[in-house]
Amino acid sequence: MSPRKKTKASPKNKKSASKPTATPKRKDAKGAETVACISETAKDVYKKIHKAQKPTLTLPVRSLSNVRYDARKGFFELGRSRKHRTLTVNTVKTFAQTLRLMGLSKEMIDHETFATKREAYYVSKNWEEAKFNEQAESDTVMDDIESMFSLRGVSREQLRFYPEEHGGAVAGNLVVIDKNPTTGRTATIDCTQMGTGAYTIPHSVEHLEFKTNAKFIIAIETGGMFARLQAHGFWEKSDAIIISMGGVPTRATRRFIRRLSDAKKIPVYAFVDCDPYGISNIYRTLKVGSGNAAHINQFFCVPKCRFLGVTPQDIVDYELPTHPLKDVDVKRAKDALSNDPFFKTHTEWTKALKMLVKMGVRAEQQALAKWGLNYVIDEYLPKKLKNKKSFLP
Amino acid sequence: MSPRKKTKASPKNKKSASKPTATPKRKDAKGAETVACISETAKDVYKKIHKAQKPTLTLPVRSLSNVRYDARKGFFELGRSRKHRTLTVNTVKTFAQTLRLMGLSKEMIDHETFATKREAYYVSKNWEEAKFNEQAESDTVMDDIESMFSLRGVSREQLRFYPEEHGGAVAGNLVVIDKNPTTGRTATIDCTQMGTGAYTIPHSVEHLEFKTNAKFIIAIETGGMFARLQAHGFWEKSDAIIISMGGVPTRATRRFIRRLSDAKKIPVYAFVDCDPYGISNIYRTLKVGSGNAAHINQFFCVPKCRFLGVTPQDIVDYELPTHPLKDVDVKRAKDALSNDPFFKTHTEWTKALKMLVKMGVRAEQQALAKWGLNYVIDEYLPKKLKNKKSFLP
Repeated sequence: MSPRKKTKASPKNKKSASKPTATPKRKDAKGAETVACISETAKDVYKKIHKAQKPTLTLPVRSLSNVRYDARKGFFELGRSRKHRTLTVNTVKTFAQTLRLMGLSKEMIDHETFATKREAYYVSKNWEEAKFNEQAESDTVMDDIESMFSLRGVSREQLRFYPEEHGGAVAGNLVVIDKNPTTGRTATIDCTQMGTGAYTIPHSVEHLEFKTNAKFIIAIETGGMFARLQAHGFWEKSDAIIISMGGVPTRATRRFIRRLSDAKKIPVYAFVDCDPYGISNIYRTLKVGSGNAAHINQFFCVPKCRFLGVTPQDIVDYELPTHPLKDVDVKRAKDALSNDPFFKTHTEWTKALKMLVKMGVRAEQQALAKWGLNYVIDEYLPKKLKNKKSFLP
Repeated sequence: MSPRKKTKASPKNKKSASKPTATPKRKDAKGAETVACISETAKDVYKKIHKAQKPTLTLPVRSLSNVRYDARKGFFELGRSRKHRTLTVNTVKTFAQTLRLMGLSKEMIDHETFATKREAYYVSKNWEEAKFNEQAESDTVMDDIESMFSLRGVSREQLRFYPEEHGGAVAGNLVVIDKNPTTGRTATIDCTQMGTGAYTIPHSVEHLEFKTNAKFIIAIETGGMFARLQAHGFWEKSDAIIISMGGVPTRATRRFIRRLSDAKKIPVYAFVDCDPYGISNIYRTLKVGSGNAAHINQFFCVPKCRFLGVTPQDIVDYELPTHPLKDVDVKRAKDALSNDPFFKTHTEWTKALKMLVKMGVRAEQQALAKWGLNYVIDEYLPKKLKNKKSFLP
């Protein structure tokens, strides 16, 4: 290694470790609302302590038993069970950590910045006795804060805790209106002009606005299929927006689809592999959310989403090459049939899943390539889109 | 499931299963060159058969033993060992499959399309006796074809076999010039105008052109760090292009960085975690390629890349929070020290790796957040960039 001057002095010169260096900026309405929420919660704690009472934080119970599914609302909703975290000798450290993380959140809104889970963990290294020893600890407290504020309609992204993963790739008849993060000037991203590439959804999408006349959004499981639709002008011919999920969609992808489809009243169609993973993990998560994180579903699920394919019936109709279902597939399908309120509510899904288990096979969306690489664009998708009523709910 | 008309007739009406429906388009120079290469190989086989001789295909041996490292050239090069596949009773099926996949490649160039590994496998389902039973079989034959043509400087992407994964996210002082895949009109992507989002590198980047005055490219391990640099105008202040690799960079990301840095003569700096995985798997792969796929390194490695950080010395200088090295980390570091021609050639790296093993710890790039979320932008990176000579080779 080449010799280098010691830079030891510099880190210690910092005044506040967690504080970003920029001066506070003007907050937008949503930021102000979030700060008000944090302050209110903190003031409650402060008041109780001054009255020599034990302060309490109220959190929703996060488990499948505290989840409701109402087909009309269309997503897994949090039930009414709550737990209360009261300040005691045993909870003092976690209690302090919760308040410090909330404080970090307020600081980040004030200074227009954010932290990933991992960064928040490292920031705590300067909190002396309140520091986290493992990232698992700070993740849990962050989940608590997220669920606590979700009761007031505030999402983790509004609290400025951003996911590590960005969102999927987007192309099609869509203009995204964002801001240059440093100058604040409008940035206009024309998703018709991405060539063979695409637009990457940012980590937080709350501030985005959209211009589009697209007739539908198609959410695609694999990057390869997205590339095919992009390369052969599918979205131009059918006036659509195409989005690559790359497996189970990230939070940013789900929130982007949700905000875009709500704002512009555009239907959403899912195009995934015909297997219990594609159906139950990818599609179900996109549409109704997940059971053990029900507090976030209000922000992230896309209840209007419908299932274009590949359906179990498609395997028969299109004579698709298949693979045998693995044990884990069969287990997943049977779990969905017996325990999942979403699949149990919709008889079309019950029939489809039973058919899949009975056939004992699965088919990938690329299996359509048996009939030609672009058969999916020239035949399959147009035929499907002519009969949208046949989409599974 | 809702009732639906049988669509059974349609798939069978197709004439050629593997043939895309569009009429042949005019090939670009690179496409013509690739087709010439394929035709020549096929004609050799054809001639031999007509002379009642056994046709032979020549492939490089793909193993670590057939790899050379020359620090001046800067990447893992394929050695001179070759194997020959002669048509016999035993090899007839693989031989036929190799020729059919080569034929598919030619067809795809003619019709301006492409196939992922998975799609190519499904296309073969219409090849009767030459069909592949498992995707692992078609993947192996595709790797053979790739290595065979690499001897003539033709890459897999030129053969139109595209990876499933697209490339990383890009932002900064860069304009990418692509074409609208259907109209052929120029698409100009201004990576300064992506707001908080980014540009996604397409699956194939061979045709892209670039406009930029950027002083350097910084290749970043994590999406979270990329988002921070993007959100706080790092690339504007330092006149740079930032690229998120998301772990070990995909083929598309590596090729994109290589083509861009070659075309515009821009230095490339890697910014990854300080652990044997970040150093040996991510950085080493980006810079010199991998040992067991040496036939592709000529296209994919970025020999001019240098290692900005996080270095083992940074852990000391910046008093970073660390985690203990796991057994697998120690094994990886020791393997690199004793077996890897790249690390063995550069004494700076030998020292750095030994120091890491001796300290017995690793540090993530987010560990800098201990000194403030934006310490990395305000202090660490500017200080590093003032002393580029200190970068590891």
